[in-house]
Amino acid sequence: MIAHSTGRLIGVGTGPGDPELLTIKAVRALEKADVVAYFAKQGRNGNGRTVVGDLLRTDVTLLPLYYPVTTEIDKDAAEYKSQITDFYNASAEMVAAYLKAGRTVAVLSEGDPLFYGSYMHLHVRLADRYPTEVIPGVTAMSGCWSLAGLPMVQGDDVLSVLPGTMPEAELARRLADTQAAVIMKVGRNLPKIRRALKAAGRLDEAMYVERGTMTNGAITSLAERGDAEAPYFSLILVPGWEDKP
Amino acid sequence: MIAHSTGRLIGVGTGPGDPELLTIKAVRALEKADVVAYFAKQGRNGNGRTVVGDLLRTDVTLLPLYYPVTTEIDKDAAEYKSQITDFYNASAEMVAAYLKAGRTVAVLSEGDPLFYGSYMHLHVRLADRYPTEVIPGVTAMSGCWSLAGLPMVQGDDVLSVLPGTMPEAELARRLADTQAAVIMKVGRNLPKIRRALKAAGRLDEAMYVERGTMTNGAITSLAERGDAEAPYFSLILVPGWEDKP
Repeated sequence: MIAHSTGRLIGVGTGPGDPELLTIKAVRALEKADVVAYFAKQGRNGNGRTVVGDLLRTDVTLLPLYYPVTTEIDKDAAEYKSQITDFYNASAEMVAAYLKAGRTVAVLSEGDPLFYGSYMHLHVRLADRYPTEVIPGVTAMSGCWSLAGLPMVQGDDVLSVLPGTMPEAELARRLADTQAAVIMKVGRNLPKIRRALKAAGRLDEAMYVERGTMTNGAITSLAERGDAEAPYFSLILVPGWEDKP
Repeated sequence: MIAHSTGRLIGVGTGPGDPELLTIKAVRALEKADVVAYFAKQGRNGNGRTVVGDLLRTDVTLLPLYYPVTTEIDKDAAEYKSQITDFYNASAEMVAAYLKAGRTVAVLSEGDPLFYGSYMHLHVRLADRYPTEVIPGVTAMSGCWSLAGLPMVQGDDVLSVLPGTMPEAELARRLADTQAAVIMKVGRNLPKIRRALKAAGRLDEAMYVERGTMTNGAITSLAERGDAEAPYFSLILVPGWEDKP
């Protein structure tokens, strides 16, 4: 049973990076929150925190949740999995302590909270124990294709959202089997992604978008971009709508 | 060459239905627009128009673009294609007349404009002739999985967005080949979608969401819902993130 005196957990989508792409609902939730929690690398603010910088109450409690490990350990290693699981458990208990005390905790989540968001690690640990609300946000991919002005999917198009980490042959197979695709986690996978796009006959259509809706964003045809490592916040877009006028 | 005296075309994502899920950028664009255009059925306001009802300037010019045909004619028929193409061409020219006169035209687009949005039909006809901006919005699918509190995709998950109109065998094949799926265009395709989900072994996970973020929205397990025709604004969600804690 949920006692009425407990606080609310709110997963707040902060959108793709431009503060104006916050929703009205997100702004109101942030203005009212007692506690604002966010995941970040040690010593950094995190992008979500930067985006909402001016909105928070002056007496708000900030609860930064600093990752204990980032890229130093292989993500498939047991040590990484154990450390990160302990970290999410401990983070959830820190948030729970505020909820038990009747405080409303807003958790910043870049893009849309339940779409690859770090907020999900708190949600699955807390949503069955506390009143919870999720405020959707504009995804990074929507921010990118809007900035590019790229008609992405229409009518009966299939859209596939694919991680750039997958094996080259599987990536090529999926790219040949969809009208439109978004490839995430580009980074050091760029040369492999390029080969997969070429094998699927889709390289000429592919657009590379770096830091989609930030002030220093850039859009180029992938065919024209070199193979140097891409930043984490970059995407590759393969548009659908083949029979557009 | 684009003359400086022409107006701006702005595709405005109005989000999944809740007026609070408009972005700040969308609100500002709508407050400033000289002309607000929107697609609608004859005699109706259209959902986008309803959502932004209170925001528009009292002296704004409303430009409703009424579909000449809706469901009376088979969408694959040549007559339908010809009528709808003529309609989009004529609509684009109506918008262009305002742009030529230096007026800013905001076009309402439910959800996200370049993601299955009707705005796209104007964008492809006008964006190379007039200064154009696209303001992304929260998609209907984000609205639905947030309302359902459903952890959708995480880590290296593949997400497939599939139209319910596709043949049953293809739908089943794709559902068995993805971590997460969103099935759009449910309507009268519901019995077929259910069979495809069952064939793919995904029926028990599937959630049915009707009118996602409207006040009368409903979420049920698909297994518990009957096969009666679903409204147009309904979605089926199959969540990923299999190894969640």
